[in-house]
Amino acid sequence: MSNIFGNVFRLASFGESHGRGIGGVIDGCPAGIPLDMDFIQNELNRRRPGQSKLTTSRNEPDSVEFFSGIFEGVTTGTPIAFAVWNAQQRSEDYNAMSELFRPSHADYTYLSKYGIRDNRGGGRSSARETVARVVAGAIAKLALKQLGVEITGYTSQVGSIRADKPYYEYDFSNIEQNPVRCADPEVAEQMAELITQTRAKGDTIGGTVTCIIKGSPVGLGEPVFDKLHASLGAAMLSINAVKGFEYGSGFDVSQFGSELNDVFYTDETGKTRTRSNNSGGIQGGITNGEDIYFKVAFKPVATILMKQQTVDKEGKAVEFKAHGRHDPCVLPRAVPIVEAMAALVVLDQYLINKSRHL
Amino acid sequence: MSNIFGNVFRLASFGESHGRGIGGVIDGCPAGIPLDMDFIQNELNRRRPGQSKLTTSRNEPDSVEFFSGIFEGVTTGTPIAFAVWNAQQRSEDYNAMSELFRPSHADYTYLSKYGIRDNRGGGRSSARETVARVVAGAIAKLALKQLGVEITGYTSQVGSIRADKPYYEYDFSNIEQNPVRCADPEVAEQMAELITQTRAKGDTIGGTVTCIIKGSPVGLGEPVFDKLHASLGAAMLSINAVKGFEYGSGFDVSQFGSELNDVFYTDETGKTRTRSNNSGGIQGGITNGEDIYFKVAFKPVATILMKQQTVDKEGKAVEFKAHGRHDPCVLPRAVPIVEAMAALVVLDQYLINKSRHL
Amino acid sequence: MSNIFGNVFRLASFGESHGRGIGGVIDGCPAGIPLDMDFIQNELNRRRPGQSKLTTSRNEPDSVEFFSGIFEGVTTGTPIAFAVWNAQQRSEDYNAMSELFRPSHADYTYLSKYGIRDNRGGGRSSARETVARVVAGAIAKLALKQLGVEITGYTSQVGSIRADKPYYEYDFSNIEQNPVRCADPEVAEQMAELITQTRAKGDTIGGTVTCIIKGSPVGLGEPVFDKLHASLGAAMLSINAVKGFEYGSGFDVSQFGSELNDVFYTDETGKTRTRSNNSGGIQGGITNGEDIYFKVAFKPVATILMKQQTVDKEGKAVEFKAHGRHDPCVLPRAVPIVEAMAALVVLDQYLINKSRHL
Amino acid sequence: MSNIFGNVFRLASFGESHGRGIGGVIDGCPAGIPLDMDFIQNELNRRRPGQSKLTTSRNEPDSVEFFSGIFEGVTTGTPIAFAVWNAQQRSEDYNAMSELFRPSHADYTYLSKYGIRDNRGGGRSSARETVARVVAGAIAKLALKQLGVEITGYTSQVGSIRADKPYYEYDFSNIEQNPVRCADPEVAEQMAELITQTRAKGDTIGGTVTCIIKGSPVGLGEPVFDKLHASLGAAMLSINAVKGFEYGSGFDVSQFGSELNDVFYTDETGKTRTRSNNSGGIQGGITNGEDIYFKVAFKPVATILMKQQTVDKEGKAVEFKAHGRHDPCVLPRAVPIVEAMAALVVLDQYLINKSRHL
Repeated sequence: MSNIFGNVFRLASFGESHGRGIGGVIDGCPAGIPLDMDFIQNELNRRRPGQSKLTTSRNEPDSVEFFSGIFEGVTTGTPIAFAVWNAQQRSEDYNAMSELFRPSHADYTYLSKYGIRDNRGGGRSSARETVARVVAGAIAKLALKQLGVEITGYTSQVGSIRADKPYYEYDFSNIEQNPVRCADPEVAEQMAELITQTRAKGDTIGGTVTCIIKGSPVGLGEPVFDKLHASLGAAMLSINAVKGFEYGSGFDVSQFGSELNDVFYTDETGKTRTRSNNSGGIQGGITNGEDIYFKVAFKPVATILMKQQTVDKEGKAVEFKAHGRHDPCVLPRAVPIVEAMAALVVLDQYLINKSRHL
Repeated sequence: MSNIFGNVFRLASFGESHGRGIGGVIDGCPAGIPLDMDFIQNELNRRRPGQSKLTTSRNEPDSVEFFSGIFEGVTTGTPIAFAVWNAQQRSEDYNAMSELFRPSHADYTYLSKYGIRDNRGGGRSSARETVARVVAGAIAKLALKQLGVEITGYTSQVGSIRADKPYYEYDFSNIEQNPVRCADPEVAEQMAELITQTRAKGDTIGGTVTCIIKGSPVGLGEPVFDKLHASLGAAMLSINAVKGFEYGSGFDVSQFGSELNDVFYTDETGKTRTRSNNSGGIQGGITNGEDIYFKVAFKPVATILMKQQTVDKEGKAVEFKAHGRHDPCVLPRAVPIVEAMAALVVLDQYLINKSRHL
Repeated sequence: MSNIFGNVFRLASFGESHGRGIGGVIDGCPAGIPLDMDFIQNELNRRRPGQSKLTTSRNEPDSVEFFSGIFEGVTTGTPIAFAVWNAQQRSEDYNAMSELFRPSHADYTYLSKYGIRDNRGGGRSSARETVARVVAGAIAKLALKQLGVEITGYTSQVGSIRADKPYYEYDFSNIEQNPVRCADPEVAEQMAELITQTRAKGDTIGGTVTCIIKGSPVGLGEPVFDKLHASLGAAMLSINAVKGFEYGSGFDVSQFGSELNDVFYTDETGKTRTRSNNSGGIQGGITNGEDIYFKVAFKPVATILMKQQTVDKEGKAVEFKAHGRHDPCVLPRAVPIVEAMAALVVLDQYLINKSRHL
Repeated sequence: MSNIFGNVFRLASFGESHGRGIGGVIDGCPAGIPLDMDFIQNELNRRRPGQSKLTTSRNEPDSVEFFSGIFEGVTTGTPIAFAVWNAQQRSEDYNAMSELFRPSHADYTYLSKYGIRDNRGGGRSSARETVARVVAGAIAKLALKQLGVEITGYTSQVGSIRADKPYYEYDFSNIEQNPVRCADPEVAEQMAELITQTRAKGDTIGGTVTCIIKGSPVGLGEPVFDKLHASLGAAMLSINAVKGFEYGSGFDVSQFGSELNDVFYTDETGKTRTRSNNSGGIQGGITNGEDIYFKVAFKPVATILMKQQTVDKEGKAVEFKAHGRHDPCVLPRAVPIVEAMAALVVLDQYLINKSRHL
């Protein structure tokens, strides 16, 4: 419940946007995994603010410090604690807003639930919390790499602009070559243009991330309540600003069963395969060895640099306009977060599956 | 993990489609709730096969037997065990298929995961398992009724036919008046027509269910990993054949932040409200007191009455054609299942929220 | 929490002493374990009332019915549901007591906690609930047998009469040869004599069970909070009437470190062993391959056939005398329950340990 | 599982004895609790090394740093992360031992389980880990204080020297007046003498802590598997060096039911009370409002300053003698750890109990 994620490979996350820092404790990480610190830092860099002209201009270095669970560069099986200290805090950007409920933010609901609210920035509800997910996800990726599992996300839609070819028609090496992290270089330029225009107006825009998991072993996922896609869905929906999740054929329900069924065949190596993959690599909640792919919808960032109406804590109507440095579009920075959460789920389910056999 | 759902109000589910029966144990149900047995049976009736010409012709009475946790008609706080015994079993319908992998079914993945498979019908992977969810959900609904929470689902799309007005423009009393369970009577007829045609071809078709939760207290949902919509999403994605989940503005990412933000105001009773509800009643993962609404995508039933190619357990290519009595479209029967899972989540989160305060 | 036990191999237990029956749902049982039904029934027979002159004369056959999770005699990896229906109910024995709080029973605390109480017998607080543990434990034992793990308990004390040699000096084949289940035949006779005298007075007497786990793999048990002995202790303390748990040198704290330390050596097969075993086979919470042994203290049964003072629900002082057929001493029947709980813990920790490695 | 303790109020613990530090993340702490930092530091001082002549001479200040979950001195309901950095490390004390298995330590079992071991000091298996428990326990105590619950422990036995009067005959204000933390000042002197002699020989000695919980509300504890005493037992047995747990009449099984039953009466305020309290304040696993009391057995510290035989990682027999600064007896420092774990359990069960009612 709440701030702890996972069943066997677990992350206890902590921290607020304007407090001392963001961090976590990873419990259940298998021993013997060499931690490639450059890789972990690079994942943080992919998430960090200020990485391009399309993101917020807050420039946070976001380097991680580890406290435990590592001996001579290798995991020991004991809890891995870490923090990314908050460096550049301009909480004055937020002070004016501490007494009012920002529209489509969590100010009102947090105060209602807890009776108290850390109003320096979004506090715990800030997307800065995802720093902990990216660190833990990077470690999960390093473990999964040993198993041959690879996870790749890309921005597939910004506003109405889509990269709508099937994922397997894209060359994934393009993704990190553009600041939007779109797999289609031409569409990426249109997206960048839209984001730039949106920022100029002080407005924000949403979109989707598509994510593909290749190399998953057959048999991951628990039947009934912890189907692999249910765990993936919960993971994605727990990311700030996410409003939807679909996998395989998803919301495209216009086709008939006879069109969507994935026919089995035996390939030249004797492996059981399917000719199509509308199942998204998961049947009955369990991986069948085909690619897993899913799409995640992000709403626009709620903080816009325009005048808005709202009420304050006393219920009085007020008008305000946010200042500060905010993302006009979270999609570019959302890609590594989606990948990180996918890594946490797949590794957790891999380890659970090991405990299902004598 | 696996066959147990929930954190405080928990359901341990059991049973196979062609075994002795389907049932469950509910742990953590508060004491003192009078169990309206007619209501519970009615929920089962809404789910049961053979209820109309649009569903499978299997005619299963599906009446529930309770074993524990109830004293003089009232819950005692101890585990509530129950079963719905399987009545009419024609496993010969399935025998021919026991050695092959039905396309887009879980035959292959179950066998791969466990090395053994109960091949009478879908076994544990059959949607008959949802019987247990409906019973538990009915009890959750009875508890929620005491809190003023009401949950309503309806079929909002079948194939390409949509009931696409906003939910609040529909009269919900229409839903149970048509066999499709669509809130729009005219669209319902078109949907029924499509389902009938689809059945005639031996084919199947998918669609969506829209679900609305009214009267939720403010403050439900846990920040970060167990956001209310993440729990709802996981619950929905755990239902057989579900491929997608969205809430509030969902996958409609074409609008700008300035268009989607829900502006706060104080209503005549002094309550904090929002003028629009693109947040779907949930902000930062926590309910704000507005209606919660979400949409769930179901793929077509995998069992079609047409010739299909596949392989058997030895990997040999075979052609087969399913017989038996199957649903051409699960949507009508999916509505009570979606509602039941929503009830389990909301009651669980309500009880969790109680434990968050001294 | 509450009525669900275990992390990976889990038992959801249900039922009341005078309701429909006692049963459970086992989730997470590995697939492929042949279920020896005679063995399971024999474990129930070891627990059942009326098995000898030393136990209650209630004669309950206690045969188990399985509902799911088994296919052609073998576990399938899906939930195993079962019930032992209550046969012989004489709830009139209890009626007179339904309005008063029996001393050292759970009548008062259940009513205080839930505001309602199933007052037919002990309801959920009855030791009849342990039927579910014995069934699940029998299945766990069958799984553990495949791993070479064997669990043996015996009555080591009744009142002041002790079988106080170290366990390894006893011939365990004696245990089931006497109705007390004591490993020492001569002490068994004295215990039987004491129990018979105690029954004649309408009184009750407690004692201890010693339990030994042989053949445990090295490495079971989780550091810090789920040390193997902490899980064993919680399991034992959850059994009705248990008041204490110790393992290895336990409460014998009179010796010095230099006397108690278990010195390591390498045996003729190259295995690391200890010369003494005051650690009870567990070091730092993790098994070291030596025998695990522990002792469990049971208080006397609270129901005595003598006049007692108490108060009723209205707080009025009343005198009462229990009737009915009760055990003068639970120890003989407690032995299989202790073994069952030990089996649940060891199998669960074995499966957890599998999930600790890639 | 593993390094996370509790169900609703949870502690994720991390750190090694000779790493960066020890700390934790507390999840589920209710909002609005003012954190008395002097109280928290004082609890750490009661646990810290070097506090008297009877403990190790390692002088660690052990001051705690908080990272999150607190705003203007008050808990916010979000995770409270903290660390106590390791100050004075003399890992050279341990280097010689890094290749051998110290008798009755966890060196062998950790290496067997994980295949790798942080051999600077005990690593994760060191009792220094309990620092995190004391910090979290102090916060739990502050919450419990608001509910009128008070927890007091004292050293009741060292070697063969006992403070064996019933706890209610002692004046608890004596406990902190002597370095042994014994409630009986005269016995405390004998204990101190024994510890001093033991240290002089380079040996170690164990003992027991008795703990009393006053003011617990009626109704805490979950029936069946999470009986309050089962949770307390698991908590205590998870503390380093603990070998046994008993509550109420415990292992004293020589008395008859007629002697041990706690007779109910109604006191002058109309409250239901018991005339004796052999139940230890818990009946059927649930608190009845009487004092909860229990006893915990600690073995002698395994590190003795005498020559010992053992084997190294290659299985070769070696002789060694430990150096460094170690406790001759952990009891004085164990008292606050026992209290802390009791506080975590009682607060957790209090919060769970809230979620049991609509």
